[in-house]
Amino acid sequence: MPSEPSRTLETFPNPNPERDYEINISTPEFTCVCPMTGQPDFATITINYVPDQRCVELKSLKLYFWSYRNEGAFHEKVTNTILDDLVQAIAPRRATVSGDFNVRGGLHTVVTASYQKPA
Amino acid sequence: MPSEPSRTLETFPNPNPERDYEINISTPEFTCVCPMTGQPDFATITINYVPDQRCVELKSLKLYFWSYRNEGAFHEKVTNTILDDLVQAIAPRRATVSGDFNVRGGLHTVVTASYQKPA
Amino acid sequence: MPSEPSRTLETFPNPNPERDYEINISTPEFTCVCPMTGQPDFATITINYVPDQRCVELKSLKLYFWSYRNEGAFHEKVTNTILDDLVQAIAPRRATVSGDFNVRGGLHTVVTASYQKPA
Amino acid sequence: MPSEPSRTLETFPNPNPERDYEINISTPEFTCVCPMTGQPDFATITINYVPDQRCVELKSLKLYFWSYRNEGAFHEKVTNTILDDLVQAIAPRRATVSGDFNVRGGLHTVVTASYQKPA
Amino acid sequence: MPSEPSRTLETFPNPNPERDYEINISTPEFTCVCPMTGQPDFATITINYVPDQRCVELKSLKLYFWSYRNEGAFHEKVTNTILDDLVQAIAPRRATVSGDFNVRGGLHTVVTASYQKPA
Amino acid sequence: MPSEPSRTLETFPNPNPERDYEINISTPEFTCVCPMTGQPDFATITINYVPDQRCVELKSLKLYFWSYRNEGAFHEKVTNTILDDLVQAIAPRRATVSGDFNVRGGLHTVVTASYQKPA
Amino acid sequence: MPSEPSRTLETFPNPNPERDYEINISTPEFTCVCPMTGQPDFATITINYVPDQRCVELKSLKLYFWSYRNEGAFHEKVTNTILDDLVQAIAPRRATVSGDFNVRGGLHTVVTASYQKPA
Amino acid sequence: MPSEPSRTLETFPNPNPERDYEINISTPEFTCVCPMTGQPDFATITINYVPDQRCVELKSLKLYFWSYRNEGAFHEKVTNTILDDLVQAIAPRRATVSGDFNVRGGLHTVVTASYQKPA
Amino acid sequence: MPSEPSRTLETFPNPNPERDYEINISTPEFTCVCPMTGQPDFATITINYVPDQRCVELKSLKLYFWSYRNEGAFHEKVTNTILDDLVQAIAPRRATVSGDFNVRGGLHTVVTASYQKPA
Amino acid sequence: MPSEPSRTLETFPNPNPERDYEINISTPEFTCVCPMTGQPDFATITINYVPDQRCVELKSLKLYFWSYRNEGAFHEKVTNTILDDLVQAIAPRRATVSGDFNVRGGLHTVVTASYQKPA
Repeated sequence: MPSEPSRTLETFPNPNPERDYEINISTPEFTCVCPMTGQPDFATITINYVPDQRCVELKSLKLYFWSYRNEGAFHEKVTNTILDDLVQAIAPRRATVSGDFNVRGGLHTVVTASYQKPA
Repeated sequence: MPSEPSRTLETFPNPNPERDYEINISTPEFTCVCPMTGQPDFATITINYVPDQRCVELKSLKLYFWSYRNEGAFHEKVTNTILDDLVQAIAPRRATVSGDFNVRGGLHTVVTASYQKPA
Repeated sequence: MPSEPSRTLETFPNPNPERDYEINISTPEFTCVCPMTGQPDFATITINYVPDQRCVELKSLKLYFWSYRNEGAFHEKVTNTILDDLVQAIAPRRATVSGDFNVRGGLHTVVTASYQKPA
Repeated sequence: MPSEPSRTLETFPNPNPERDYEINISTPEFTCVCPMTGQPDFATITINYVPDQRCVELKSLKLYFWSYRNEGAFHEKVTNTILDDLVQAIAPRRATVSGDFNVRGGLHTVVTASYQKPA
Repeated sequence: MPSEPSRTLETFPNPNPERDYEINISTPEFTCVCPMTGQPDFATITINYVPDQRCVELKSLKLYFWSYRNEGAFHEKVTNTILDDLVQAIAPRRATVSGDFNVRGGLHTVVTASYQKPA
Repeated sequence: MPSEPSRTLETFPNPNPERDYEINISTPEFTCVCPMTGQPDFATITINYVPDQRCVELKSLKLYFWSYRNEGAFHEKVTNTILDDLVQAIAPRRATVSGDFNVRGGLHTVVTASYQKPA
Repeated sequence: MPSEPSRTLETFPNPNPERDYEINISTPEFTCVCPMTGQPDFATITINYVPDQRCVELKSLKLYFWSYRNEGAFHEKVTNTILDDLVQAIAPRRATVSGDFNVRGGLHTVVTASYQKPA
Repeated sequence: MPSEPSRTLETFPNPNPERDYEINISTPEFTCVCPMTGQPDFATITINYVPDQRCVELKSLKLYFWSYRNEGAFHEKVTNTILDDLVQAIAPRRATVSGDFNVRGGLHTVVTASYQKPA
Repeated sequence: MPSEPSRTLETFPNPNPERDYEINISTPEFTCVCPMTGQPDFATITINYVPDQRCVELKSLKLYFWSYRNEGAFHEKVTNTILDDLVQAIAPRRATVSGDFNVRGGLHTVVTASYQKPA
Repeated sequence: MPSEPSRTLETFPNPNPERDYEINISTPEFTCVCPMTGQPDFATITINYVPDQRCVELKSLKLYFWSYRNEGAFHEKVTNTILDDLVQAIAPRRATVSGDFNVRGGLHTVVTASYQKPA
């Protein structure tokens, strides 16, 4: 089973689509590169979603996070992009992505974006 | 009093059915087997419910959790199944089951499903 | 001043009945006996109430808790009974009683019951 | 600048009356005397308020708390009195006072009272 | 890139104005001077906002906080001023600023002010 | 298997007497009676010992703690007595017993006694 | 049973003088007066001692702490005085007294003094 | 790469045998079976060792822990056995194994055994 | 009583020079300027000392810390300088100064220096 | 000032070589690559040393850690290598390096290596 960074999120059928329920996935192992200085940034990413027909597969999510390792990424943009990619992949009923970035210049930044499926 | 793993949940009459009240039961001692790798998974399971006519008996709940020890179980499915079995056994006014699974591949996953008795 | 276990809750006039306000009383020193095994059970009891015309007197509440020391008591029933006795004694505007019972068989149980004075 | 215990709360004009905002002041240094036993009681007092035209001055608040040092005071009454005195002094848009009293007889008591300016 | 204290907040275009999302920035490194005693005060400042067309740039925010280092500032006023300056700079959809000031005279003070863009 | 309070400590052969190793057993479920006031006292008891030829059996230890439930016991004496009884039962290479008693009159008391087998 | 502040420490015979063991008593309810400003000071006092022939009685210790309530006391001096008074009263094998004083002027002070009985 | 429970510990050459250094490995995912009741037990196992010529390979250690899943094991014996097996496999300069077992009957047990290579 | 930053440490006679005892003073309110970038640095300073004939006066210590507010100071140097100045002022029997500096560039630095009076 | 990953540690003269003192530097921002799977690993690295004639410069230390970002590194080896490189660069009187690696396969690993300058 090859393991390489990949921007593709694998999915599987939601085993219980008859019910709204929450899946919360978090990792302290997110790193990307500051587009201004080229230096590494570190964050804890937390995803919370209510699946509709598909769930995101955990191993592909790990590879997805890995794919940011050498990418320049602003805090605000990358958090929104992860949310957009998740919505694109699984069309959840609702989803929230939070990026909690390590202190830089004495400032601690957390960005939190949410999606709600149109009624 | 024989003690063996069992998927049957014993119940007893709710001593105070005239009132909505909450019963919260949690255990860090849930283990099952990953259906993909065959390796053990570990979780803390938390049940929160408002009983109607029946309450779940604690010892049988322990044996129920034990019954998953050698079963393959996906995080999402098993959390929903515990909720379904609880609803089946005691028909509560409402119930929530949460499965907080140990880190795998740097990802920490919590699945939370709820049931509300139809009005 | 004799100090003996007693199921009677002493009360005193609410000094500020013109206003809804909360009184929260908790103790980690509740013990009773398991009706199944006869062995001691231990719990932290928390009472939260909005008084109407009467407040519960603290010393008598301590003696009240003491009165359970040699009584058989199920988790669900005893929590509801404490709420019933409190309501009986002081007729509060609203009240909540929570019993947080020590782990038995790997399971940690919390029972929470509430009362709302009829409008 | 003389510093003596005083029941008078000094105030100053709210610098931003155009906006509702919260001021939260807490101190673990409140002590009074139990009216029953004459022995010292200790509490953490927390004040939270939305000022209208006046704010309470911090140094006078400290002297105000000091003024209870040799006074007999029941938990319920003194918490409500502090709220009444604050409302009297600054006529806030809303205010909450909480008294978190040290354990006596194994019981831990917290009293919380709130005020809302009439519309 | 010169680094000097400055009251000017630099901004950049919100990369995702199509969505309401939150940006939370906190720092324990705020210090100003007490206008009464001339002595240093210390606080943790937390900003939480939903951007509209502009976001605040982190480095300029750091220089902005720095600009208070030798300024006399009352707790209530300075918290409101930071909120006013943020609103002036980026016209957010909503914003909250909190100043959590170190203990003085045994009293711990937190001031929290919010802004909501008119509909 | 009858379960009654008993002052007898059951033992079993140390499976690894060839090596010094530590066994630490603690319980927050110790209660006795204050010999002065007759009121319940509560403590967390911690035992730490290096076994020689015998280990203490856990279930009998639980029944042993239970046997103090209606006994008058001073903090200092009861901690030393538990140590004496343990030494009597298993003749350990060394042992420490600690009793951490709940707050009474604002005072929190911990008594710690140790035994060392004579060389 | 009269309860008044008293500088006299009552004692009782050590029930286990044949063994060195530790008694640790702490209280967050110590208050005295700053000799410089006349304003209240607050501290947590911790006593740790190995008794010889006498132990200190808890209720009298509470009254002893109470006796400082209106006394001027410097941090360093009062901690040493409590140790001296304890040594005077019970002639322990060894003793340590620690005073952990609340923050004043941004500074948090802890004073710790020990006594060892001469060989 | 087949993954099955195995009592064999794989090893690899210590990359820095010229220096004493510590390797600490812990897991909350240890479960075995109580030999008395047949019911599952749970523990956190911590290994701390100074390698000599060999280090223990992490994946095989995981499979080793897995091998206890259906085995009857007393707390004292299993902790010593893990230490014995580790010493057998890698002949470390020194090693400590600790088993921190979940509460049973209100008692929390930790067993800690150490090995020191003969000089 | 004028309050200005000052590098002079006031002292007072040790009230108990007959005994070795520890005085621990800490403050999270230390700030200086980075000599490389000119930007503010923040630290928690902790002093621990055994006085000989003199103790350091708390208010002057506060003014002493204040005196670094606009000074360039390297982490290592300033921690040693504070220790040197303390030793110069009070000639303690022993003293330790620790500077715990806020994160810069993802690195958290603590410098700890000690002094022992020559025998 | 160019900022690129570099294995070279810059140094500066110890400002206080006349005294043994400790410098503790830690970062949660260390990442390398698992040599077995090629996947990212994450660790918190802590350095503690007593400088002799040279100290390590913080910015170069950050670039040094960065240089591991795309390198394969075993837990044991990389911790020892960081210690070796530090000793090579500054010849400290003593030094300790600890690598606290994120959970893999349910196992949490910490490696700690120390150096002592020969007398």
